[in-house]
Amino acid sequence: MVELKGVIPALTTPFKEDRSLDLAALRRLNDIVLDDGVDGVLVAGCSGETWALDDDERLAIFKAAVDQTAGRVPVIGGCADIFVSRVIDKVRLAEHAGCNAVMITAPPYIMPTQGDIYTFFKEIIAESPMPIMIYNHPKRTGVALSVDLMDRLADEPTIVALKESSKDWNQLSQFIRRCRDRLNVLGGYIGLTGLAALSEGAVGYVDSSTPVLGPLSPQFFRAATTGDLETARAIQVRITKLRPGFDASGTFPAGIKAALDILGRPGGWPRDPIKPVTPEGREIMRRVLIDAGILEGEEARKRA
Amino acid sequence: MVELKGVIPALTTPFKEDRSLDLAALRRLNDIVLDDGVDGVLVAGCSGETWALDDDERLAIFKAAVDQTAGRVPVIGGCADIFVSRVIDKVRLAEHAGCNAVMITAPPYIMPTQGDIYTFFKEIIAESPMPIMIYNHPKRTGVALSVDLMDRLADEPTIVALKESSKDWNQLSQFIRRCRDRLNVLGGYIGLTGLAALSEGAVGYVDSSTPVLGPLSPQFFRAATTGDLETARAIQVRITKLRPGFDASGTFPAGIKAALDILGRPGGWPRDPIKPVTPEGREIMRRVLIDAGILEGEEARKRA
Amino acid sequence: MVELKGVIPALTTPFKEDRSLDLAALRRLNDIVLDDGVDGVLVAGCSGETWALDDDERLAIFKAAVDQTAGRVPVIGGCADIFVSRVIDKVRLAEHAGCNAVMITAPPYIMPTQGDIYTFFKEIIAESPMPIMIYNHPKRTGVALSVDLMDRLADEPTIVALKESSKDWNQLSQFIRRCRDRLNVLGGYIGLTGLAALSEGAVGYVDSSTPVLGPLSPQFFRAATTGDLETARAIQVRITKLRPGFDASGTFPAGIKAALDILGRPGGWPRDPIKPVTPEGREIMRRVLIDAGILEGEEARKRA
Amino acid sequence: MVELKGVIPALTTPFKEDRSLDLAALRRLNDIVLDDGVDGVLVAGCSGETWALDDDERLAIFKAAVDQTAGRVPVIGGCADIFVSRVIDKVRLAEHAGCNAVMITAPPYIMPTQGDIYTFFKEIIAESPMPIMIYNHPKRTGVALSVDLMDRLADEPTIVALKESSKDWNQLSQFIRRCRDRLNVLGGYIGLTGLAALSEGAVGYVDSSTPVLGPLSPQFFRAATTGDLETARAIQVRITKLRPGFDASGTFPAGIKAALDILGRPGGWPRDPIKPVTPEGREIMRRVLIDAGILEGEEARKRA
Repeated sequence: MVELKGVIPALTTPFKEDRSLDLAALRRLNDIVLDDGVDGVLVAGCSGETWALDDDERLAIFKAAVDQTAGRVPVIGGCADIFVSRVIDKVRLAEHAGCNAVMITAPPYIMPTQGDIYTFFKEIIAESPMPIMIYNHPKRTGVALSVDLMDRLADEPTIVALKESSKDWNQLSQFIRRCRDRLNVLGGYIGLTGLAALSEGAVGYVDSSTPVLGPLSPQFFRAATTGDLETARAIQVRITKLRPGFDASGTFPAGIKAALDILGRPGGWPRDPIKPVTPEGREIMRRVLIDAGILEGEEARKRA
Repeated sequence: MVELKGVIPALTTPFKEDRSLDLAALRRLNDIVLDDGVDGVLVAGCSGETWALDDDERLAIFKAAVDQTAGRVPVIGGCADIFVSRVIDKVRLAEHAGCNAVMITAPPYIMPTQGDIYTFFKEIIAESPMPIMIYNHPKRTGVALSVDLMDRLADEPTIVALKESSKDWNQLSQFIRRCRDRLNVLGGYIGLTGLAALSEGAVGYVDSSTPVLGPLSPQFFRAATTGDLETARAIQVRITKLRPGFDASGTFPAGIKAALDILGRPGGWPRDPIKPVTPEGREIMRRVLIDAGILEGEEARKRA
Repeated sequence: MVELKGVIPALTTPFKEDRSLDLAALRRLNDIVLDDGVDGVLVAGCSGETWALDDDERLAIFKAAVDQTAGRVPVIGGCADIFVSRVIDKVRLAEHAGCNAVMITAPPYIMPTQGDIYTFFKEIIAESPMPIMIYNHPKRTGVALSVDLMDRLADEPTIVALKESSKDWNQLSQFIRRCRDRLNVLGGYIGLTGLAALSEGAVGYVDSSTPVLGPLSPQFFRAATTGDLETARAIQVRITKLRPGFDASGTFPAGIKAALDILGRPGGWPRDPIKPVTPEGREIMRRVLIDAGILEGEEARKRA
Repeated sequence: MVELKGVIPALTTPFKEDRSLDLAALRRLNDIVLDDGVDGVLVAGCSGETWALDDDERLAIFKAAVDQTAGRVPVIGGCADIFVSRVIDKVRLAEHAGCNAVMITAPPYIMPTQGDIYTFFKEIIAESPMPIMIYNHPKRTGVALSVDLMDRLADEPTIVALKESSKDWNQLSQFIRRCRDRLNVLGGYIGLTGLAALSEGAVGYVDSSTPVLGPLSPQFFRAATTGDLETARAIQVRITKLRPGFDASGTFPAGIKAALDILGRPGGWPRDPIKPVTPEGREIMRRVLIDAGILEGEEARKRA
């Protein structure tokens, strides 16, 4: 079974100015993060504007990521939906493309009970043997998986990982303690809980800022997991310096895309109703990238 | 321009056991609530499992409600979506069917900024002159309209009403105070904030429990708005007695449907991934309906 | 038994510049609020810096209020403390001075269980027949009375009233619904929940801003309780205009004292560690008092 | 200057059945925790029912702890109060007794502004050179120190440590990151944030459960700070097993005292209004102590 751990960037989906899919840019982005040293790749998740993709686009994205990654690390395909049948449609695309795992959330928007979430995942598991990473993101989906429910779901062999993004340490630490004997718990918000979660037993993180951070993200992970805490702490502080840039960047993931563009990496446009970052927002982003030492090299070159 | 006020039930969408749309049942439900004395009807909102309807079904529902209502009260059609273009597709259906207004939420799931929400509604307004009731439901959509944003949107003539469902009195009272000079603020959760909101200046409420409450809901509204506070308070207490029934009923609106069935009104099945209420849940519902004095008459008849 | 209802100002305790007690000023303030039309007076509560008073001062304050009020309305004496024995010491002072009731909180700072709070009040009741108004102020005391506990305490004949200051409508409305058959529920934060609470069945409010509001506060109460909702709503909006003034005024009740001084009413100095309002804060306060129409008369006179 | 770090138990104050101070028991408890391997001792803090002690008792406690510790580790004396003058009175007792540092909270109950808290500490510093550990406990005191304020206070040389007990990781991690270059940040709630805080840069913790945990607490600290994460994680899980025992034990620190009694360590009675643990609560505590492997030895002995 696939092992999801380490640094897994949640890739944005590059769109051209006419908002059509820019597969070539996605392939470049995929190569860049692999060169940075990541341990897996997630495509068509929230960072990838999963809600804005039709089935053909989703398949094309899955195929591009699988093809470009060429087996070096696992590729995870985002397959969230309200309905089991639609989740399965997307899982079939992931299977067809050769993804190694799929990411699924509890049904968003409908505010299901814990019992109906359990049945939802059981029905998915009955339909497909694809390894599943559950994505718990209560703010976005309007529903939180309880620790008890996750404990139950962890018994399912095809549920291999949990990505927890609730910003709530009590929740995250409990997920880790209760479930890490049976699945891989991956954190998020590495600036906030990165080191804490890895110390507690998270085996990695799925993170949308990693393509912006570049090699700094794998450096952070290696430092945190080899006992070099001072280095890990110092990188964490640098990561949090990006916060004002993202805050000034409009609706996520527009800010990630703008930061990538500024860094010369493939960012591109977001799709409606998400608007591109304003010139003022881009300028703030540029400054925090310098402040965090991420634009340093480039800026130094320009000044030279 | 249409005036949305008073008691507006959010109707469930009856499905048959095979989960196909039961339009005849919807028509009966529509007639029943009009007989109860309501002042408007909302169809294909959250209570109507808006997420589970395709365009043909949505149009059929809109047409059935308009036809059955026959101009006696306004009909509001639920048209929420992430994308402006998809909202407009649905608004066209509402226009075509003859609805009097449409209900739209901020884009769910994508967690937009206040600025992107503003643009979202401005783009919708630019496309259609249909009167809009904005629906603020942060828990479900993952995003809250700020009071400042709503104040700005209230200046748009086609935005005629706000349905506020945040359960937060500070928020609700501020919406009422800031915006009621330009639009109709409608509450929700009448058991919790019904009387308070009407006293503060809400002109009515959009409520999913009203089809279950029957004439009790209009009685509550009349009492609350004619100064008969003791009657209003007493009804409010009865309404809150239903709470354990809904808590035991699984994912909303399964409990509403079960309660309607118990009362001999058209409830029907929910669509996946929402599961029907269990026999145990139905029994709890039956008991709270009796406890609240809503099943009294029927029970008395049976005993006679 | 004393009936606590209507408008009950929580009086500040005027201190001179050397921080000694200014009893003459307290007597004037007491007269002023009675002239404004209040229905009761609370002294030595939180607004009265109860924590900064020794027993002699507390007794002198109780006596001054009782003497000045001369039986026209009830006088409530603040007697909060961590220990039953110390509460009783203070209650004896209130009895001796002729107060009509005492105000007591759950033991602050020690975070007691609901059970230990119950015992605390039972032990107090066993010692003294003085009518008690319980003051629930979780933010300050670090402990919240549950609705169930209050329901139990409401059965005690000597517990005649509840002052609820949690800013939480769910809590306040439940207290009213569950307990108002046995005791008088009084709200707080009239700008936020004034009209709502009175509609729900609160019989009045204990409020620290009333001495600043002057006759406006009784006007609000009369409007709200005689069905003149538009007048009540309009006054509520004016009351909330004071908010930025209090926010700029440092630690409560320094801002109340500054506002009283600006209005020519007896305010005076607060005791350490509470610092007097800065000149900038006083200027903001002056402006909001004008903006709310409370300084209008005076300002007009000056300009004339 | 004294260095506060490592494992610092917050000692309870043993009272006899007549609620008089049991200094001999305190001396025994002090010896026991030193034998367990702690790195400092806090007396007359919240765990020590600081609110229930008069000045003579406080001095006697300070002297007993200093005498018994005999310079092996630092002794910290609890000196919290609302008023600067009263804090200083207590600090004088600590100086006189030979304590190495004092613990002070922001003024409880009065809900001061950040500015008035700053002045409060500045006035204390101006009066005494005793090293201060600030104790941030918002739930109890009703006021939270902001990260910005703590950052400013960290510049004061006599403020040598911060004990943070807010259970909020965002807060705790920010305190550590912003202030650890100038003072020692100590966590609390080791079952919840122990390992996380130490990884992030906390240098230890002040903890009330340590006298119950015995050598397990220093073992946890050594494991966590020498990279033996699996051992640290395992101990953390054992520590959290005590939670139901404390939840069933009434008002803190009654449960600590009951657990100590069960373990044959000096616990004793709490002072009113805190009531002793009920027999049922003690039985639950006994069971969780066995479940956590803390009573293991004793139980084994009994069974033998």
